[in-house]
Amino acid sequence: MIDEKTRREMATKTTLKEFESVFPKLEEDLLNWAKGYNLPQQYLEWYKKMNTVRKRSGMLAALLSLEVNAVGGKCNRGMSVPDSVSLLLNRALTEEEYFQAATLGWMIELLQAFFLVSDDIMDSSITRRGKPCWYRQEGVGMVAINDAFMLESAIYTLLKKHFRSHPCYVDMLELFHEVTLQTELGQLCDLLTAPEDIVNLDNFSLEKYSFIVIYKTAYYSFYLPVALALQMLNIATPKNLKQAEDILIPMGEYFQVQDDYLDNFGLPEHIGKIGTDIMDNKCSWLVNQALKIATPEQRKILEDHYGRKDSAHEAEIKKLYNDMKLEQIYQDFEEKSVSSLKEKISQIDESQGLKKEIFEAFLSKIYKRSK
Amino acid sequence: MIDEKTRREMATKTTLKEFESVFPKLEEDLLNWAKGYNLPQQYLEWYKKMNTVRKRSGMLAALLSLEVNAVGGKCNRGMSVPDSVSLLLNRALTEEEYFQAATLGWMIELLQAFFLVSDDIMDSSITRRGKPCWYRQEGVGMVAINDAFMLESAIYTLLKKHFRSHPCYVDMLELFHEVTLQTELGQLCDLLTAPEDIVNLDNFSLEKYSFIVIYKTAYYSFYLPVALALQMLNIATPKNLKQAEDILIPMGEYFQVQDDYLDNFGLPEHIGKIGTDIMDNKCSWLVNQALKIATPEQRKILEDHYGRKDSAHEAEIKKLYNDMKLEQIYQDFEEKSVSSLKEKISQIDESQGLKKEIFEAFLSKIYKRSK
Repeated sequence: MIDEKTRREMATKTTLKEFESVFPKLEEDLLNWAKGYNLPQQYLEWYKKMNTVRKRSGMLAALLSLEVNAVGGKCNRGMSVPDSVSLLLNRALTEEEYFQAATLGWMIELLQAFFLVSDDIMDSSITRRGKPCWYRQEGVGMVAINDAFMLESAIYTLLKKHFRSHPCYVDMLELFHEVTLQTELGQLCDLLTAPEDIVNLDNFSLEKYSFIVIYKTAYYSFYLPVALALQMLNIATPKNLKQAEDILIPMGEYFQVQDDYLDNFGLPEHIGKIGTDIMDNKCSWLVNQALKIATPEQRKILEDHYGRKDSAHEAEIKKLYNDMKLEQIYQDFEEKSVSSLKEKISQIDESQGLKKEIFEAFLSKIYKRSK
Repeated sequence: MIDEKTRREMATKTTLKEFESVFPKLEEDLLNWAKGYNLPQQYLEWYKKMNTVRKRSGMLAALLSLEVNAVGGKCNRGMSVPDSVSLLLNRALTEEEYFQAATLGWMIELLQAFFLVSDDIMDSSITRRGKPCWYRQEGVGMVAINDAFMLESAIYTLLKKHFRSHPCYVDMLELFHEVTLQTELGQLCDLLTAPEDIVNLDNFSLEKYSFIVIYKTAYYSFYLPVALALQMLNIATPKNLKQAEDILIPMGEYFQVQDDYLDNFGLPEHIGKIGTDIMDNKCSWLVNQALKIATPEQRKILEDHYGRKDSAHEAEIKKLYNDMKLEQIYQDFEEKSVSSLKEKISQIDESQGLKKEIFEAFLSKIYKRSK
């Protein structure tokens, strides 16, 4: 058993259970916000009735949508806020600190839910986390677009409620706006580069790949949690933010390359799904690597078989990837990326309160992961 | 010819031409923002190429989407910001003041574009302002969802660029967040009350109607422009905001009732379209009025013919509306609303800088309008 003194002297890692325990409080905040509009009895009764009509349960459709969409994931992004705050303070968090950090973490989960609900519609996806995508659930349909908006809006309702008097309130607002727009820009480029219905490998390149994954994934998944942790502790100096960005953006890129690698080379029992990037015409790291080194004959195989909804075509591409030794190329990329990241981490200037341990914690979570 | 002294002593009304002349400057701001991300040559070239592939023209798809979606409307909402500022100051605006006020006005137009692009998808609409809806244009499709997000994000990019040092910057951010969420709540209730595919008149009531139009329309169309004008001039005191809200929300409700009235009783050559509310199962003021006063026989006619995509059914409803004298009921409602609004306007306390003229200007624009 750890005594109180020791507890206060070491950073701790949050658990999913602990993190999820904060959610009902935030849900209540959002419900109270909704009740605050003069829609009391009549609207609430209507809502109950509506549930029978629309086959929904729960209080407000948008909140149900929160429950379905936000809770149930791994919450890695959200949980990294309290973890980072604890590492920055080098001790366990007080209850109040934990609540604040977890609230910021939940806002990232809300942002992600907003993106996932709408991306699934744009990509015509079928399932998400093993269940039908939100827009494909009974009685939802295109109302999911509005639900996505309400998930995004919930971020600002919660920020106002819990951080209005924080010295970094405006910076937090601007950070969320900036990262939201960066992610939308990444999504736009992704949609335009790899439309599901038009296969055109001339569209692909490693440079575009890099741009897409940095904007679409790295900013909100890697940079945002650390920037929020720094803001919460009032040490989000330009120098600290720049140092964080310079490490977390390439780390986010490495993470996405891993994802693409695992889609083809990972074991379905580890990654929890069967990869479909080849059939879905995804602008994946693997196809971009293949295009880069392909002989004219290999290029022809890619042209003839990539992005077709047919497992015989897919098998041709999988065979080509093996012939081209993409697994080895990936291993080399991974070692190079990781040693470059470690080098950068070792050079961090901690004089303004930034801690190397944050980046080491992120890196250890993803290095050689199999899922 | 008005001399400079007189010019400075009277409020002026902006013209659409003047208002539109501000847009290219804002478009440039947004483009510069996008260029600011390290995506120079390679991305721009890609974009040019992409245009041929996707049949788009213009610089960035999102900006094109701005052009298509934001410019081309009547801009009544946006133009009411410089008009209100001028009335509050009781003089013509300087160039700098006009630019600021018009910039805030354009943000309302961006917010509206965000709503219209996405509402059209949710409602499966076919045309908007006489052209195919944005999502139905060639090469767009569900990418329109992301374009809608980018329209919303543009608001915050412009607010940051032009108002970051304004004393009301945080209030402006919060006002946009609040009004956005209110509108989303209204849209949610609208979608759930009147789904296009399920006709159930038990779902309708004048109370719900009121709630929907207040949240979905009145806040962003009527309250937002005046609240922004007050903030721009630093006179957005709680008292002024409250007085503005107490008049503009019922005024917005009256405006929407008019819209519903004109959909059926207006002349197509005036309103520029043929009304389809009856066939579209809309939760319109007219059907709610009819339901309220219907005899059991009339109720049966409503049940049997409302919300059917067929002009014979529609004709039955139109006949019923005439039999029920809904036109007269509307005229009575209009007179009652307008005299109540005039009464409220006459009681405005101008001691903190609010001006009755703002509300008179709004009212005179909509009273007895035929389009």
